[in-house]
Amino acid sequence: MFQISDIDHLLPFILKPDNIARFEIVGNSPHVVIGDRSKYPLEKSFVHCESVEAVAVAIEQMVTQGAGPWQAAVCALALAGHETVSMDREAALSHLRAAQARLVATRPTNTAMARRLEMAMEAAVLALNEQRPVDKAIIDWLAETRRNIYADYAKRGRLGANLIEDGDGVLTMCFAETSFILAVAMAQEDGKQIHVYTPETRPFLQGAKLTAPSVHELGVPVTLIGDNMASSLMAQNKIQKYFTAADLITVDGHVVNKVGTFQHAIAARYHNIPYYAFAWGLDPNRPDRASIEIEMRDPNEMKQFKGHPTTHPDIEALYPAFDITPPELVTGIVTKNGVFQPDEFGASYQ
Amino acid sequence: MFQISDIDHLLPFILKPDNIARFEIVGNSPHVVIGDRSKYPLEKSFVHCESVEAVAVAIEQMVTQGAGPWQAAVCALALAGHETVSMDREAALSHLRAAQARLVATRPTNTAMARRLEMAMEAAVLALNEQRPVDKAIIDWLAETRRNIYADYAKRGRLGANLIEDGDGVLTMCFAETSFILAVAMAQEDGKQIHVYTPETRPFLQGAKLTAPSVHELGVPVTLIGDNMASSLMAQNKIQKYFTAADLITVDGHVVNKVGTFQHAIAARYHNIPYYAFAWGLDPNRPDRASIEIEMRDPNEMKQFKGHPTTHPDIEALYPAFDITPPELVTGIVTKNGVFQPDEFGASYQ
Repeated sequence: MFQISDIDHLLPFILKPDNIARFEIVGNSPHVVIGDRSKYPLEKSFVHCESVEAVAVAIEQMVTQGAGPWQAAVCALALAGHETVSMDREAALSHLRAAQARLVATRPTNTAMARRLEMAMEAAVLALNEQRPVDKAIIDWLAETRRNIYADYAKRGRLGANLIEDGDGVLTMCFAETSFILAVAMAQEDGKQIHVYTPETRPFLQGAKLTAPSVHELGVPVTLIGDNMASSLMAQNKIQKYFTAADLITVDGHVVNKVGTFQHAIAARYHNIPYYAFAWGLDPNRPDRASIEIEMRDPNEMKQFKGHPTTHPDIEALYPAFDITPPELVTGIVTKNGVFQPDEFGASYQ
Repeated sequence: MFQISDIDHLLPFILKPDNIARFEIVGNSPHVVIGDRSKYPLEKSFVHCESVEAVAVAIEQMVTQGAGPWQAAVCALALAGHETVSMDREAALSHLRAAQARLVATRPTNTAMARRLEMAMEAAVLALNEQRPVDKAIIDWLAETRRNIYADYAKRGRLGANLIEDGDGVLTMCFAETSFILAVAMAQEDGKQIHVYTPETRPFLQGAKLTAPSVHELGVPVTLIGDNMASSLMAQNKIQKYFTAADLITVDGHVVNKVGTFQHAIAARYHNIPYYAFAWGLDPNRPDRASIEIEMRDPNEMKQFKGHPTTHPDIEALYPAFDITPPELVTGIVTKNGVFQPDEFGASYQ
């Protein structure tokens, strides 16, 4: 059976589960340790929280992002569970429900946060009913959930690594997280020489802050470029494959991902470079392009860099968070079940 | 006959000749006034120089850019000319040659700087020979040269304005200077409603710092976007035309311009949006793509924003200053003589 320890050596610092968030009891003092992504890559540091409220505030202050917030929240629920040890059942339930409500409120529009916490609560209630330790039940649930998630990452990473050939220049966009990083790490482990090119990804610079240091940590050559430079490298035959994550893939194969993904896909097609997207699953409520609404983020983000203005304050700006790449530009969608044509994607999970 | 005053009302602050650089005598104190583009758009300010050396240092410190440095240098030569008033011919010539050498040294690889200064020197020597005031001769030469240059800008601007239709969304890249700004201003004067979209242009942010405020000053709606967002807007039918300047166009019609120009041209073609480039002239020494060497600038520029690091110091980066858009993606090249197909460009100046 797959264990996360099987792939631990292929994971850079910020993708190791214990560095995302963990529940610890040191002496008699329980606390939640959260990897501080806001300081990465200049610092590899952690935020130590001794209460549910402290974890909630850390999540609200964007100490962690991506898959981090729900894992930190589940660790905070374990902390609340630890505090129920001398309570009666009713008081314990009430204490846990209060913690759950506070944690869900940190990300009111993120359904993954609410869903994961509800599942962790089910494990907690079962432990209460059976008079087992509640904190351990929640942490065991987290470990098993993580094991399943990383098993899927490993399957997609293996499929991605098989698509990469020796000598390839690999373009990505934003931070394609564990599936992509594992694909790169496994391709290297297979003995393939590769070179990763990562656009910085304005305005939040996930490419510069997260992707480039993660790939560098694996010992794979990586070059940071501007969001305006990939086509120039393609014309010089420096890029042979293009891989991204996907925030969502519609049932009919439209890839919704960080803005800029689309223009690289157009340029890749122009240069006959295949484009592959990693899928985390299938959402039957998103059948097609018309079912997607692109989130428009605060335009002020485009007028500054970490608080330093880039233009005159009167200038208007626009920040669409995502764009949509149509299936005709997508060579393949990498799922845990295989690599599928976009028009096969809807059926691939059946 | 065309006069710059004919179009002065169509020029934003930084493109008015007197705001680029001017030679002034206030009381008995001659000085060169240079518009400070390094502070624009947050401040509209000037650097006042009382010596050739002060102008040379200002140029070296990037107070001005684009077409600014050679104009500031010619004004500095006029300042040196003013200082020759009580010298004999030989001392005057020696003084002027020393000033010229210092100014050429500010931009050792910029042939335009050396060429313009040599032409201004010819006017100065003629004045010395005819015992006319040397400073006035240089300033008259600058005025006439500017008049010819702005006459060409106005011709290209008119042709560009005619290509823009009422209701158009117009994409540009970097700072396409006077030809583009005049095209936008003239289209507006023609009563056309247009909207300009300007990518910020990493790493130096010319789109955010220069283009967006210049267009805004004309009262034309302008939206700042990231270098990764134009394709997304094209897919939403927000962009109908794409215009850029060109640092160089090869005789066979390859457009060499700020990196990012190419990827927008690919995306424009994918969306059936016409792409036009403004040409400043024809260089017979650049027949084709093979004759172009792309300048690679300091990669550290891609790892920072005004001195603030964006990634870990160990990460490698790349900063190609320009890219090359092949003629097949270019709808038309706008010259002072008309709008030409890329394959007609070489013959268009004959």
